[in-house]
Amino acid sequence: MIHKLIAKIQKTQAPIVIGLDPMLSYIPEQIQKKAFAEYGETLEGAAEAIWQFNKEIVDKTWDLVPAVKPQIAMYEQFGIPGLEAYQKTIDYCHAKDLVVIGDIKRGDIGSTSAAYATGHLGKIQVGSKCYTAFNEDFATVNPYLGSDGVKPFIEVCQEENKGLFILVKTSNPSSGEFQDRLIDGRPLYEHVGEKVAQWGQEHMGDTYSYIGAVVGATYPEMGRVLRKLMPKTFILVPGYGAQGGTGKDLVHFFNPDGLGAIVNSSRGIIAAYKQEKYASFGAEHFADASRAAVEDMAADIRRALEAK
Amino acid sequence: MIHKLIAKIQKTQAPIVIGLDPMLSYIPEQIQKKAFAEYGETLEGAAEAIWQFNKEIVDKTWDLVPAVKPQIAMYEQFGIPGLEAYQKTIDYCHAKDLVVIGDIKRGDIGSTSAAYATGHLGKIQVGSKCYTAFNEDFATVNPYLGSDGVKPFIEVCQEENKGLFILVKTSNPSSGEFQDRLIDGRPLYEHVGEKVAQWGQEHMGDTYSYIGAVVGATYPEMGRVLRKLMPKTFILVPGYGAQGGTGKDLVHFFNPDGLGAIVNSSRGIIAAYKQEKYASFGAEHFADASRAAVEDMAADIRRALEAK
Repeated sequence: MIHKLIAKIQKTQAPIVIGLDPMLSYIPEQIQKKAFAEYGETLEGAAEAIWQFNKEIVDKTWDLVPAVKPQIAMYEQFGIPGLEAYQKTIDYCHAKDLVVIGDIKRGDIGSTSAAYATGHLGKIQVGSKCYTAFNEDFATVNPYLGSDGVKPFIEVCQEENKGLFILVKTSNPSSGEFQDRLIDGRPLYEHVGEKVAQWGQEHMGDTYSYIGAVVGATYPEMGRVLRKLMPKTFILVPGYGAQGGTGKDLVHFFNPDGLGAIVNSSRGIIAAYKQEKYASFGAEHFADASRAAVEDMAADIRRALEAK
Repeated sequence: MIHKLIAKIQKTQAPIVIGLDPMLSYIPEQIQKKAFAEYGETLEGAAEAIWQFNKEIVDKTWDLVPAVKPQIAMYEQFGIPGLEAYQKTIDYCHAKDLVVIGDIKRGDIGSTSAAYATGHLGKIQVGSKCYTAFNEDFATVNPYLGSDGVKPFIEVCQEENKGLFILVKTSNPSSGEFQDRLIDGRPLYEHVGEKVAQWGQEHMGDTYSYIGAVVGATYPEMGRVLRKLMPKTFILVPGYGAQGGTGKDLVHFFNPDGLGAIVNSSRGIIAAYKQEKYASFGAEHFADASRAAVEDMAADIRRALEAK
């Protein structure tokens, strides 16, 4: 799957992942109205609105990007109907041949991590039959529990040819509270980064590992250090756009081969029509605004990489 | 909700939470057969088996314990049908007046944590209507992202009179890989514990905070230190029984008032009939075996506390 991700990045010339993190407030009124007319102002109605919103964005952008990253929390908040919309979104993105990164940030003791890995990346046995449940291609994982919380995910990835992005340095303002604390003179995130590089050896592709890392665009200097510490690790970079990261902050996340990083933008793409810059599209053509935002983001990153 | 938890512990004289973490391999054949006859060997069939298994255990134990802790991963691995069984289990336990601790170990950047908090502990607005989704009473939370990943959970808990258990020192063998590393001469888990105590000040009950901690029974000496560091924090203690913790390991997790901790056992209770000790119940009376295991565990903890 890391090979597919790299091939698609090279084909699209856009190391971009669209964060499909819909909030009801992002969804144009015409879509909400239609969904509520059919299902009422219910969890099912909200889920239908989310699904129709996602579908239209995917329809207008799938050819420009290698991957999407649905944030499961945004679906989980609507309970079962929300998770059905999550599942539908994944299946639809697969039908469009997009790589799907499930932003699930799971992580637990061994047997429990094994269950999460099964549900999101693997196959589950029921009697004599075998099923996939959510079936993402990559999943994000929290490292706080250490190796035996991560290895069950890696084992399923080995079996299924899938991958992970493990949290190393997150994009949020207070990520330093624990992640930046010094251990033997070096911040915790570096220790975690080293572990991710080690874990990555257990599931290597040709040049990059199937086991990637998450490092926030909002911390470019740390990105530079981590890039060197984990040379074969693909880095998923959240925090571009709405969270404050810009193209020039991103260059240090890439290797000299121009690869090694994929940058997420969520709100900046899916709610682009709400920005002044794309307001002329109007709410009716929100997905065209998203397409324009993807094109602008790809150009921003290309320019920054050329100027590196 | 912390008041309800404490009142129920005092009434049952059993600081015990039953971990409803069903694996198909725990579920007696007669239940699986019946579920598969009705729904086929499908995800729906597996979910039905899990639900019937849980229901029987709850029916036979609800009067003995204050709380249950369903581990969502064990349901999530069966996709949407599995999560429907999770939801049904929560609703059923509420009907039995049990405190429900959702073992979800979520945690993310602020806006995403807010969505998880809404979905699991809060209410979600859809148009002019308001719904609960999963509606647990407590949730477990991962602290790796720091304050702004935790505070949205606390805010929802304040609104809804609910609580958290935040991972401090987990029960698994490799938990020390990051959690035990020394920062300014003290292990990371102590720094996290101090933060949990601080966060707890923001949502206090009468004697204990609504914001608790998770500390594994498998690390009793660390439990002793953390107990003193977080005097007003209720500690959820996993790792009893199958993971190796015993009654005498637990005493240091309790305060002199005999409160301050609640001990989880999953496999040791729900799959008790598979142990030699309870084998005479047979698979048919598996839930009676669970009841006996709860009674034995409560007695083990009481003895250990009396001998303290």
